[in-house]
Amino acid sequence: MKGHLDATFAALADPTRRAILTRLASGEASVAELARPFAMSQPAISKHLKVLERAGLIRRGREAQRRPRRLEPRPLAEATGWLENYRKYWEGTYQRLDALLEELKTTDRKKERR
Amino acid sequence: MKGHLDATFAALADPTRRAILTRLASGEASVAELARPFAMSQPAISKHLKVLERAGLIRRGREAQRRPRRLEPRPLAEATGWLENYRKYWEGTYQRLDALLEELKTTDRKKERR
Repeated sequence: MKGHLDATFAALADPTRRAILTRLASGEASVAELARPFAMSQPAISKHLKVLERAGLIRRGREAQRRPRRLEPRPLAEATGWLENYRKYWEGTYQRLDALLEELKTTDRKKERR
Repeated sequence: MKGHLDATFAALADPTRRAILTRLASGEASVAELARPFAMSQPAISKHLKVLERAGLIRRGREAQRRPRRLEPRPLAEATGWLENYRKYWEGTYQRLDALLEELKTTDRKKERR
């Protein structure tokens, strides 16, 4: 489990990899489809996909031609589980953070609406 | 905010640093106090503390002699906020699995009745 968390958090420490996961949360996609929105070559995207795959965050689908990638939710659930332990800490000690999180959520929702 | 998440997740990708945060969640501690439970030299611990400090996950207290470190909950809250977006996804996945299992059970029961 510790090794899992190491690989998960390391994989999440990159904005492109986080963006790939965000894309895959809305449905599986081929490497070409994943590369399109980024100003990046397919080999550069493939490197990021390898990191995500080794961390168990994504999996290859069976469809032979496209080999679509799909999100594997378990490591994300485990990482959230680890961070959840600190929710009590910041909720107990810093109630103002609750307000901050609410604020962030509201800002996100406003952005979505635009 | 993206840069924050990079540094936060990179800092969390190490079991010693996660253990230090766990320790600090129960109260501030000096470097010597933090080094004690680990089979590590104080300089080795100091290196980890520097990573955590640069990521904004911990802060030095004002007490001149001990310079106790304390947890800064904001980056942890932000990282949790990012992962929270995927909660819907995996809860959805598991719910779909639940529904599928229910469906299979119902089908089995119908078969039994025949």
